Amino acid sequence: MTAVANELDMKGAAAKAASRRMATLSSAVKDQALHAIADALLENQDEILAANGADCNEADANGLGEHMLDRLRITPGRLAGYAADVRAVAALPDPVGEVLESRRMPNGLQIGRRRVPLGVIGTIFESRPNVTVDIASLCLKSGNAVILRGGKEAIRSNTVLTRIVREAAAGAGVPVEAIQFIESTDRALVGEMLKLRDVIDLMVPRGNADLIRRVYAEATMPVVAGGVGVCHTYVDSSADLTMAREIVVNAKCRRYSICNALDTVLIDAAIAPTHLPAIGRALGARGVELRCEPRARDLLEAAGVPCVPAGPDDFGYEFLALIAAVKVVDGLDGALAHITDYGSGHSEAIVTESYTRAQRFLDEVDAAAVFVNASTQFTDGAQFGLGAEVGISTQKMHARGPLGLRELTSYKWVIYGDGQIRPE
Amino acid sequence: MTAVANELDMKGAAAKAASRRMATLSSAVKDQALHAIADALLENQDEILAANGADCNEADANGLGEHMLDRLRITPGRLAGYAADVRAVAALPDPVGEVLESRRMPNGLQIGRRRVPLGVIGTIFESRPNVTVDIASLCLKSGNAVILRGGKEAIRSNTVLTRIVREAAAGAGVPVEAIQFIESTDRALVGEMLKLRDVIDLMVPRGNADLIRRVYAEATMPVVAGGVGVCHTYVDSSADLTMAREIVVNAKCRRYSICNALDTVLIDAAIAPTHLPAIGRALGARGVELRCEPRARDLLEAAGVPCVPAGPDDFGYEFLALIAAVKVVDGLDGALAHITDYGSGHSEAIVTESYTRAQRFLDEVDAAAVFVNASTQFTDGAQFGLGAEVGISTQKMHARGPLGLRELTSYKWVIYGDGQIRPE
Repeated sequence: MTAVANELDMKGAAAKAASRRMATLSSAVKDQALHAIADALLENQDEILAANGADCNEADANGLGEHMLDRLRITPGRLAGYAADVRAVAALPDPVGEVLESRRMPNGLQIGRRRVPLGVIGTIFESRPNVTVDIASLCLKSGNAVILRGGKEAIRSNTVLTRIVREAAAGAGVPVEAIQFIESTDRALVGEMLKLRDVIDLMVPRGNADLIRRVYAEATMPVVAGGVGVCHTYVDSSADLTMAREIVVNAKCRRYSICNALDTVLIDAAIAPTHLPAIGRALGARGVELRCEPRARDLLEAAGVPCVPAGPDDFGYEFLALIAAVKVVDGLDGALAHITDYGSGHSEAIVTESYTRAQRFLDEVDAAAVFVNASTQFTDGAQFGLGAEVGISTQKMHARGPLGLRELTSYKWVIYGDGQIRPE
Repeated sequence: MTAVANELDMKGAAAKAASRRMATLSSAVKDQALHAIADALLENQDEILAANGADCNEADANGLGEHMLDRLRITPGRLAGYAADVRAVAALPDPVGEVLESRRMPNGLQIGRRRVPLGVIGTIFESRPNVTVDIASLCLKSGNAVILRGGKEAIRSNTVLTRIVREAAAGAGVPVEAIQFIESTDRALVGEMLKLRDVIDLMVPRGNADLIRRVYAEATMPVVAGGVGVCHTYVDSSADLTMAREIVVNAKCRRYSICNALDTVLIDAAIAPTHLPAIGRALGARGVELRCEPRARDLLEAAGVPCVPAGPDDFGYEFLALIAAVKVVDGLDGALAHITDYGSGHSEAIVTESYTRAQRFLDEVDAAAVFVNASTQFTDGAQFGLGAEVGISTQKMHARGPLGLRELTSYKWVIYGDGQIRPE
């Protein structure tokens, strides 16, 4: 057995065993542990910043770009944010033990479903060290054990953070084996981890599209991950122009590098001549490049709004940049057909004053989140009232949309009898 | 492209397209279609029985055993049962469109989750032709399209049944393309079907353990299936002897070939001398062979109850036969340790008068269904109040225990705004 497989097997077995004790931990112990973790993060600021500084220096020397360096860096302000996030998880209601339904059957059996943890969550993530603390906190609160595998460039930061998290949790009565951190940065380990079907109940990868594709392709256990978010906003013929402009600009520009950001503007041909130039101008003023199919381009050029022709891959593409594809469509049916063909099932919006078309859009668009008269940037665990999230799922099984504490649970059927047998 | 792949690709694409219309079908149309299917099954009895008779004759000539022949056979009484089952599905509430929760956020957004169909259900099943009608009905009611692939030995029966189901459904306004039956009995087709990740949203195999293992190993899409059900009943020291005996006998003997049947009796050493002989004698009177570890064997032999030594594989084994493994354990901790090591996460029961031990059993046993003082044979969709079921899941993701209409659905987040944008 290789050293890599050995570390993984030992820590996996320890996590599995600890997951049984995690399932019956009281809310009080879990919340005390979370506050202890938050306290310890602040108390150990110097050590954390020193380890992170060493990671950042090495990353800089290795030529990691400024964008990635920024993701890697921990500052006193960010560390305070980590601690606040952990306390926010403590403040959420405990999902474990919730009775989803329970009824008395005619034969006297009381039959119900009770929410239980999934068991062991595996996670593979990249450079942002806050993910270590986030996911450990959410798994702890939801009564799951967790196996964390972070990126090589953050190894010193993650090693210190997980040591602090584990010690603080253990001090509050949480089984220390329930939080496992894989120290080896051997790349072979990802493949080994994805084979652990008997240990890991759910794999939650966090990272770029390549990592997520690899996890989906190789994992032998269930995976929940957000994939690509190609998000459309359709401006209907009855839309209020000011509302449409503000929603489109917000959906694109508030943050353009996140999965719920707008990628394509669709606009009804009936109002494109009056509305599209104003919307295009507002986007342009925020530095957005407009990539247009011919009808949209003709209208924008005639109005003197800068734009470029759309290429063959600009529709159905997640830009993660200050770029938007623009298309004029023939009414709601045209918009629905485009979204069916090009959407990724993440977040889709219509701006309309038409009751009937709003309802049809909500009914007929197949996506994790469908919006009427609001920005797609609201697709987010906190905005949806779930508190923190481990990601956003674009699949339909188990959980769709933001993944909060509840989505890290399963249920068991609990049956109270007084001697019932089933008639033969 | 092979002919097999061609049939599959065409029918898959048709099902996918039809699934969008299925998602918005009214409950009235779906229920009318179900009643039309029930009527048509009865009206076409002669044709169905003739096709099934031909299947049975060929199966008999090919030496199919009596057990399998019985599963294959359709009688007028059984056909009436099929029709009644379809009407029972019609009588269940429509899961689609149910709002799971919806709340007004501080910014005025109304955010909720609405239940939606999964899309396209794939199913691979073996000789019982009632599965064709059952699964088609459940998929129709839950707004899903379905691709059915039955066994070779029932091909004539299934061909006639699906033609009748499709015609009746179409007559009531259901898109006929939403119910697809694969006519090719080429074995290569199973492998091709398991590759259709882009078409099939959920695969539900029904059949023996080999089929289910193959589907889990090869499927590229999510799978929900019951696996092995190794079910324990633990007789605690405080158990009422009569209740314990009746529950154990019922859990084993009511039907021994189903996954919720008892496989292992565990009994506390404290009461084994007084209780085990009576329980063993009652099982023996029903023809059950007792395979015992040494402590249990000593007690039974001393009481003159016939039994045999347990072999190394008798614990953790699903017998599907009139056989039970028997073990004396040291209290609840011994029982919990045994179930953790040998259980399959299906159905587990305790017989006890102890409040504390009942609660510990419910809390600590990790299974789809945990029972106090009742027979594990109650694990069943109808018994749990779900109506019909497509199977029983022993996995934790998405759905656990009986899979009814609700478990064939996902949800979408639906957000009603009046111009909200997210603060920058």
